[in-house]
Amino acid sequence: MQTNIQKIAVLTSGGDAPGMNAAIRAVVRACVFHGKECTGIYRGFQGLVEGDFIPLGARSVKNMINRGGTFLKSARSEDFRTPAGRKKAFDHLKENEIEALIVIGGDGTFKGASLFYEEYDFPIVGIPGTIDNDIRGTDFTIGYDTALNTVVEAIDKIRDTANSHNRLFLVEVMGRDAGDIALNAGIGAGAEEILIPEEDLGKDRLVESLAKSRKSGKTSSIVVVSEGDQIGKNIFELAEYIEEHLKQYEVRVTVLGHIQRGGAPSCYDRVLASRLGVGAVEALLENKHNVMVGIKHKKIVVTPFNEAIEGSNEIDWDLLKVADIISI
Amino acid sequence: MQTNIQKIAVLTSGGDAPGMNAAIRAVVRACVFHGKECTGIYRGFQGLVEGDFIPLGARSVKNMINRGGTFLKSARSEDFRTPAGRKKAFDHLKENEIEALIVIGGDGTFKGASLFYEEYDFPIVGIPGTIDNDIRGTDFTIGYDTALNTVVEAIDKIRDTANSHNRLFLVEVMGRDAGDIALNAGIGAGAEEILIPEEDLGKDRLVESLAKSRKSGKTSSIVVVSEGDQIGKNIFELAEYIEEHLKQYEVRVTVLGHIQRGGAPSCYDRVLASRLGVGAVEALLENKHNVMVGIKHKKIVVTPFNEAIEGSNEIDWDLLKVADIISI
Amino acid sequence: MQTNIQKIAVLTSGGDAPGMNAAIRAVVRACVFHGKECTGIYRGFQGLVEGDFIPLGARSVKNMINRGGTFLKSARSEDFRTPAGRKKAFDHLKENEIEALIVIGGDGTFKGASLFYEEYDFPIVGIPGTIDNDIRGTDFTIGYDTALNTVVEAIDKIRDTANSHNRLFLVEVMGRDAGDIALNAGIGAGAEEILIPEEDLGKDRLVESLAKSRKSGKTSSIVVVSEGDQIGKNIFELAEYIEEHLKQYEVRVTVLGHIQRGGAPSCYDRVLASRLGVGAVEALLENKHNVMVGIKHKKIVVTPFNEAIEGSNEIDWDLLKVADIISI
Amino acid sequence: MQTNIQKIAVLTSGGDAPGMNAAIRAVVRACVFHGKECTGIYRGFQGLVEGDFIPLGARSVKNMINRGGTFLKSARSEDFRTPAGRKKAFDHLKENEIEALIVIGGDGTFKGASLFYEEYDFPIVGIPGTIDNDIRGTDFTIGYDTALNTVVEAIDKIRDTANSHNRLFLVEVMGRDAGDIALNAGIGAGAEEILIPEEDLGKDRLVESLAKSRKSGKTSSIVVVSEGDQIGKNIFELAEYIEEHLKQYEVRVTVLGHIQRGGAPSCYDRVLASRLGVGAVEALLENKHNVMVGIKHKKIVVTPFNEAIEGSNEIDWDLLKVADIISI
Repeated sequence: MQTNIQKIAVLTSGGDAPGMNAAIRAVVRACVFHGKECTGIYRGFQGLVEGDFIPLGARSVKNMINRGGTFLKSARSEDFRTPAGRKKAFDHLKENEIEALIVIGGDGTFKGASLFYEEYDFPIVGIPGTIDNDIRGTDFTIGYDTALNTVVEAIDKIRDTANSHNRLFLVEVMGRDAGDIALNAGIGAGAEEILIPEEDLGKDRLVESLAKSRKSGKTSSIVVVSEGDQIGKNIFELAEYIEEHLKQYEVRVTVLGHIQRGGAPSCYDRVLASRLGVGAVEALLENKHNVMVGIKHKKIVVTPFNEAIEGSNEIDWDLLKVADIISI
Repeated sequence: MQTNIQKIAVLTSGGDAPGMNAAIRAVVRACVFHGKECTGIYRGFQGLVEGDFIPLGARSVKNMINRGGTFLKSARSEDFRTPAGRKKAFDHLKENEIEALIVIGGDGTFKGASLFYEEYDFPIVGIPGTIDNDIRGTDFTIGYDTALNTVVEAIDKIRDTANSHNRLFLVEVMGRDAGDIALNAGIGAGAEEILIPEEDLGKDRLVESLAKSRKSGKTSSIVVVSEGDQIGKNIFELAEYIEEHLKQYEVRVTVLGHIQRGGAPSCYDRVLASRLGVGAVEALLENKHNVMVGIKHKKIVVTPFNEAIEGSNEIDWDLLKVADIISI
Repeated sequence: MQTNIQKIAVLTSGGDAPGMNAAIRAVVRACVFHGKECTGIYRGFQGLVEGDFIPLGARSVKNMINRGGTFLKSARSEDFRTPAGRKKAFDHLKENEIEALIVIGGDGTFKGASLFYEEYDFPIVGIPGTIDNDIRGTDFTIGYDTALNTVVEAIDKIRDTANSHNRLFLVEVMGRDAGDIALNAGIGAGAEEILIPEEDLGKDRLVESLAKSRKSGKTSSIVVVSEGDQIGKNIFELAEYIEEHLKQYEVRVTVLGHIQRGGAPSCYDRVLASRLGVGAVEALLENKHNVMVGIKHKKIVVTPFNEAIEGSNEIDWDLLKVADIISI
Repeated sequence: MQTNIQKIAVLTSGGDAPGMNAAIRAVVRACVFHGKECTGIYRGFQGLVEGDFIPLGARSVKNMINRGGTFLKSARSEDFRTPAGRKKAFDHLKENEIEALIVIGGDGTFKGASLFYEEYDFPIVGIPGTIDNDIRGTDFTIGYDTALNTVVEAIDKIRDTANSHNRLFLVEVMGRDAGDIALNAGIGAGAEEILIPEEDLGKDRLVESLAKSRKSGKTSSIVVVSEGDQIGKNIFELAEYIEEHLKQYEVRVTVLGHIQRGGAPSCYDRVLASRLGVGAVEALLENKHNVMVGIKHKKIVVTPFNEAIEGSNEIDWDLLKVADIISI
């Protein structure tokens, strides 16, 4: 560890995700462990532009590991999109003698961070915190595992009603561009069909498949729908279409919505957040900049921001095949 | 116990509620305990019309106490609304030597049961099973306590995001005619405002109150909205109205929907269901007919069907006042 | 409301219980609502003796309603048992211009409060906060409902293993003098036998009953044991005794322990705590002193401390009969 | 796929683990998908010896994915340890025209399976199902992720009390030979110290470290102890030792016990079980025998039984370092 950095700031940006607090806690304590000062920045890049800072010590983050959301808060920042805003941000960092920055968030966060790094050559390391799991360079993003459990627990409840009334439920889950949540939670929830943006099933094949599974003896069904799926985008229309063409089921819709973002993080997300928080501080101390720390096959790895934001991991086609087999 | 009834049937009807399985289990085992036979009827009154029966013994209901939904299933029955349908139902009961019937459900269920009792003088006892808590003659209905916990846990998650982003969330909960779920879950979830059908707050007073609470230092807010509330009925319109007139918050909407009906029952609902299941069998054995068993101040009581279905309990105005005080 | 009290202090004492934070929050906000000042006292009576005070405003208690434990902390206080300690306590209250005190806790707490009231004629109101539900003058104590759910969820998990391995589990739950938790959670968890301090079943009748239920076709069993039960006091010895005399089961023991005290409160406990917190402040404002506020059949009532601490509510023998019937 | 196998049997053996039912379900449905018959064997190898078989179809395993335990049950089998027992087992398989066997369990299960394969050249594939995560050849075993969440949720509750009373809690978790559960759940629960079999900390260094962390401002502490740890083996003695030598804390012990084995599986465990269940059937169809299917870096891999049972994965020393840093 050959760096002279003495003071590191940390912020959370983009949609909140369970485990962000655990990551902040790990950043703060890794700073203390390595004899560095740590500063928290409120409301993401907007707080950076406004200089909304707070000193953080080991005890500032006690009883934080199990809390959903982010106590440093998050916000969209129009100001940070402007050169003038970023100039202010840089000035606030200098005034406060902050020499490096850790940003916790998703691809939008890393794009902003990367731009700032290029303009001001300011050392930045990113931590992937988003329930969407759509970042290259890490097997998992912080919050994803918790969101999967939240979705599966919600669908377990819906299934009670589906079973009791012999109904078909369409359940919309998050995922504008990526079907990871739908695919994994769909398998976990025992869904009959899973609609994801990466694959265009078509309404007719969906109805056909549901008809077939009804014939095979299924008396109720769950269809998990990614919000970004082609035919699932207007989920209420899809429900009507199915009811008209299938005729054997009453169809109901549930949009899970924001409950997917919150809640106490799962053990996996807490451990992941702890590792990545420590890893981000150590990456800075090893003079790694403009990179994201991630986990690959249980090891910490770093990936340049521009690779991380290149677009999401491809869907796991093997898993999609498993989904087909086990919903027989 | 001076009755000669030897064989009792049980069915669940109306929307499913957590604890219905626990109630069925208690009915079955109370029958066994008192040396009576028990028959399950599938799909509520429809199964009664169709003669869809199954014999139930003590072991048939093992591992049922903790399951949501109803393993006897529930359904709407157009057939039972017709005299011909009810005739068929009566004939199936006679053929199967069933001498009494226990129905688990809400006010619609009790109306049907009451009509059947009047026409055929067939001994029937009801058990209040509905998450809505809108039955007179019982302090609590089976499933209500579980639904409250489900709502509160969901809003705890939403609050993580509300806090992290300084947002206002409108959360729609069940309750077409009764505000009990909204009022209790709203207090439990620490909501700033609670909109219920029993009280017409008006959009302007809502906005005013939210503005005031923002001024008092609140940076995020939860508004719990009964689906039957006057201004909350179109919750998406209400959200737009607030965003326009309040201007200080981003407003988001979550409709909790069907997750409120499912899930493993709470301890309270399991105990209540067990008591009422036993109580229903014992009421029959004491020649009480055309009544519902309920719980009042921890004691089992019976109420004639026509009183039970007279309309829901009045909202607890003291509690509404508590809600105002603690959301200050 | 004819009192001149301007400043009220609040403390939590005895074992912590889920919902204590919700009660503190309600006390604070009811003070604000009624234009009174509120002071928090840390670590119960010990903090009172030491003058460990903190001013509390409406925002001090935000995001508290869903947290287990008590942020004011609790402690045993040897000092408060001495006249000298209580004198110090009184002096600190005077110095700080505190005119009334709200204590949240169990019977030990109320005994201390009552003594202090008698010595100093200092206005005090109590709120029943304990998982044991062993206070007269209230249908439920704060934390009891949550503890029941915690126990039932834990036993649901244990039952998975009991079923998979055809085993008998003895599960020890809290309750030194009162069997309420064991009885209600035992029913809720579908226990075959429930051992409570109020009833001495005897080892032989227990083994006999388990043998009978094995014969009736049960392949696994759960026995819920109150820690204060006669034969269950040494639960490991009891397990050996059963294994020796029953011979048909492997017997396992789980002592649930402290998980029963913590966790996010249930909706019921949050609402109860909110009502009682508001009720305590309003009782003080109505010049009611040396009393506990409780809930009876959904209404707030006050009970003199000396009645409240007279010993626990009697066990509900009807419920015990239900337990016998449904475990058939 | 070049095999002629037409009928495959499946059993669960050893300690039950959440997700075993999901694995059975996937095996059954993969059989149906590939046009094969599937037979369930009750009570592990004992049911194999006794010929306790049941035919399983796609609908036999409905609503199984979310249930803890194993509906095929598990048992220890002394008979299968004898050549005579295994002969009977083989005969039952032949009589029933079963041509291949899938066993779900831990290292003991695989040892038995391997022996049987060697003696009878009977095609067997294993699936790692155990909460201990102590099998080589897979990144995760089925049930491990759920157990971690169960432990972390339990300790979250205990922490409420630890915080409220400024206490030190020793919490014993499963892990006779391997510290994986303690290490990961300890990090996830924010434990101050983690005692694992792989590392002998020594009582004095433990006390020293706790004293230091008390000095740094911590007012309560959680120590997570693996049941197989050197100094933690007798956890009650350890508690006394700490109380004597540290003097600043009241020390309490909680032994989590069997709640760690049960419960609805996490989404991760459900997906893993689904993949491995399908993978096991497909391995058999590809003529892979005497191997375990596992997951490595998100891909299905096979490992010979003799390697899988060689002993557990090494502890992740990097993670232990992270634990030290974040508990500062």
